[in-house]
Amino acid sequence: MAQESILYDLSHSYSDETVYWVTARQFELDTVFAGDTDKGYYYSAYDFTTAEHGGTHLDAPIHFAKGKQAVDEVPLEKLIGPAIKIDVSKKAWDNPDYLVSVDDLVSWESDQGTPIPEGSIVLLYTAHSRHYPDALKYLGTDQRGDDAIALLHFPGLSPEAAQWLVDNRKINAIGLDTPSIDYGQSSLFESHVILLGENIPVFENLTNLQDLPASGFEIMALPMKIEGGSGAPLRVVARVSE
Amino acid sequence: MAQESILYDLSHSYSDETVYWVTARQFELDTVFAGDTDKGYYYSAYDFTTAEHGGTHLDAPIHFAKGKQAVDEVPLEKLIGPAIKIDVSKKAWDNPDYLVSVDDLVSWESDQGTPIPEGSIVLLYTAHSRHYPDALKYLGTDQRGDDAIALLHFPGLSPEAAQWLVDNRKINAIGLDTPSIDYGQSSLFESHVILLGENIPVFENLTNLQDLPASGFEIMALPMKIEGGSGAPLRVVARVSE
Repeated sequence: MAQESILYDLSHSYSDETVYWVTARQFELDTVFAGDTDKGYYYSAYDFTTAEHGGTHLDAPIHFAKGKQAVDEVPLEKLIGPAIKIDVSKKAWDNPDYLVSVDDLVSWESDQGTPIPEGSIVLLYTAHSRHYPDALKYLGTDQRGDDAIALLHFPGLSPEAAQWLVDNRKINAIGLDTPSIDYGQSSLFESHVILLGENIPVFENLTNLQDLPASGFEIMALPMKIEGGSGAPLRVVARVSE
Repeated sequence: MAQESILYDLSHSYSDETVYWVTARQFELDTVFAGDTDKGYYYSAYDFTTAEHGGTHLDAPIHFAKGKQAVDEVPLEKLIGPAIKIDVSKKAWDNPDYLVSVDDLVSWESDQGTPIPEGSIVLLYTAHSRHYPDALKYLGTDQRGDDAIALLHFPGLSPEAAQWLVDNRKINAIGLDTPSIDYGQSSLFESHVILLGENIPVFENLTNLQDLPASGFEIMALPMKIEGGSGAPLRVVARVSE
C-alpha cells in the first residue's frame, strides 16, 4: 500500500518549548517513575497537563460554533484524504500580518489549471513555522496574559477568503503553519467562525510544509479523541508518492 | 487515493469513563470557557490532565526498555502501513486470563497460507473490548490503587509468543483490545520487555477489531507527539478496501 511513498511529519512535538496562545495553559510533563524497578526491569511513565489548543492541534467546529461538531464527532473522512498546498511564503516572508486572500486561492487554481478539488484538505504555507518555537518571532510577543493579545503578529486567512471557500468550494479541512487561522491582529476571529460554522475543521501550528508539492499528496490528521472537546493535540502526516 | 475504502475508528474516546491502569492518573477535563462572548461569537475551550497510559494509547519502547525510542522518536513507518488481525476471540471469550500463544500465531499463518508478512502491524482480537468501559469486567476489578493490581484479569500476549515474533518474524508494531500486552495476572511484564526492547511499539485498549478482515488492510496509528514521552494518547484508524 505505502510502498513507493514518503511520510512527512507536519507536527511539532510537545515539550516545555511548545507554543501556546498567550492566555492558555502550557504543556507540563510530570514524572511518575523513570528508572530500574526492584523487579529487574526498567520502567518509565509520565502524566501531563495541557490546554487543548497549543502546539500542533485541531480546532473542532464547536470551538467557535455552538452546536457544531466536537473533536470526537469530526468524521474521519474529513481528516484523512487528498490534500493541496497553497504557497504564500514569498508574500508572508517579511509581513507577519499577511492575510491569505481570495486572489491567492484563485492563483493556485490558475497555476494548477483546476479548481480546488472537492473534498480537499487545504494547507496554507506561509513559512512562518521557521520561527517556531521563538515566541517573539512566531507569536509576535514573548509576553503572556491578556495584555499580550494586542501584541500578536502572525499571518492568517482573511475572512473574505474563508467566506469564498465556504461559498464556492467544498473543502474537507484547512490547516496552516501559524498559531491560528485568523491572523494575529484579529479581534473577532471571523475566519474561525465562518469555517467552523460549516463544520470545516482547522489544523494550526503545522510545520515542514516546505517539503510538500502543490497537489497530489495525502494527509492523515488524527486528533486525540476527546469526548466533547473543542480541540485536541493533533498528529499530522503527509504521504507523498515518489 | 482513498476512494473505494472504509475507515474504521479503533480508538476509545477520552472522558470520565476512560479506563486507566488501577494506579494511574485518570482523564480530567477542565472548562476554560464555554458560552457566548461579549464580542458576539460563541467560544469553548478546555484544559485536560491525563496519564500517558490510559484509554487507547501507545506504549513507546522507552516505557519498559532503557535507552530505546520515546514517543516522538518512533518512526512513522512503524505506525502507518499494512496490517493483519489474529482472531483469538473464541478462546478468550470466557477466559479473562487467556494468553495468546505461539500456536495462535502459527494457526493464522496456516489459515492464510503465508507467514506474517515482514513489516506488518499485528492486531490481536480477543473481543475483550466488549466489556469497555466497565472496569469490573474489563480490568477484572473496579478497585483502584496498589492493592488492586493482584485483582487484574484480562487477556494478553504470552511472553513465549512475543519472543517467537521477535526471533522469527519482522513486525512493525503490535496492538490489542485489552488494557495491556501482558495479561492481567502478569507481574514481570515480560512481553512488554521483549517487544519494546526491540523497538516494537505497542497499541493498547483498541476497539472495533471485529469489523476488520484477517489481512489486506492498512493501519494509521498516530500518537500525540510527546517529546521524551513513554507513551501517549493514540488515534488508530483502519482503512479497509471494499
